[in-house]
Amino acid sequence: QDAAAGKTKAAVCSACHGAEGISVLPDYPNLAGQKQKYLETSIKAYRDGHRKHAVMSPMAAGLSDTDILDLAAYFSALPAQSPAK
Amino acid sequence: QDAAAGKTKAAVCSACHGAEGISVLPDYPNLAGQKQKYLETSIKAYRDGHRKHAVMSPMAAGLSDTDILDLAAYFSALPAQSPAK
Repeated sequence: QDAAAGKTKAAVCSACHGAEGISVLPDYPNLAGQKQKYLETSIKAYRDGHRKHAVMSPMAAGLSDTDILDLAAYFSALPAQSPAK
Repeated sequence: QDAAAGKTKAAVCSACHGAEGISVLPDYPNLAGQKQKYLETSIKAYRDGHRKHAVMSPMAAGLSDTDILDLAAYFSALPAQSPAK
């Protein structure tokens, strides 16, 4: 996997998941610092129809295995953020 | 929601998601610092069958709405952890 390539591919993700993987929407998960393997599994589940979401299913539909590995490497390496409260 | 009650109810979660919400398994997500609303939505999706997982579906099956709110409050308030690498 290639986190640098993942960063480029992640541009479209930032609208919901934030520029640095910290979600800007309460109903959308933070991705920064998440387990790499879990991210990979989740995106594949959306792509392959095992998990469904109005936004994520079409987003994931066109991704290759390499795309998914790159995205998972990128987001998992970003610093996590603790809640402000 | 009641994070203190959530902590008690979260005891069973720790086997996979870690004592402090940092997963001990690569294919399981960290929950610490995750968006509260997303956690609530996710657990309800497991309980209500919109999302399926061999472990999480039965785990969530017996939870009340209050249980889920408490758990989401608890995990979202835990400090997130950035990747060690």
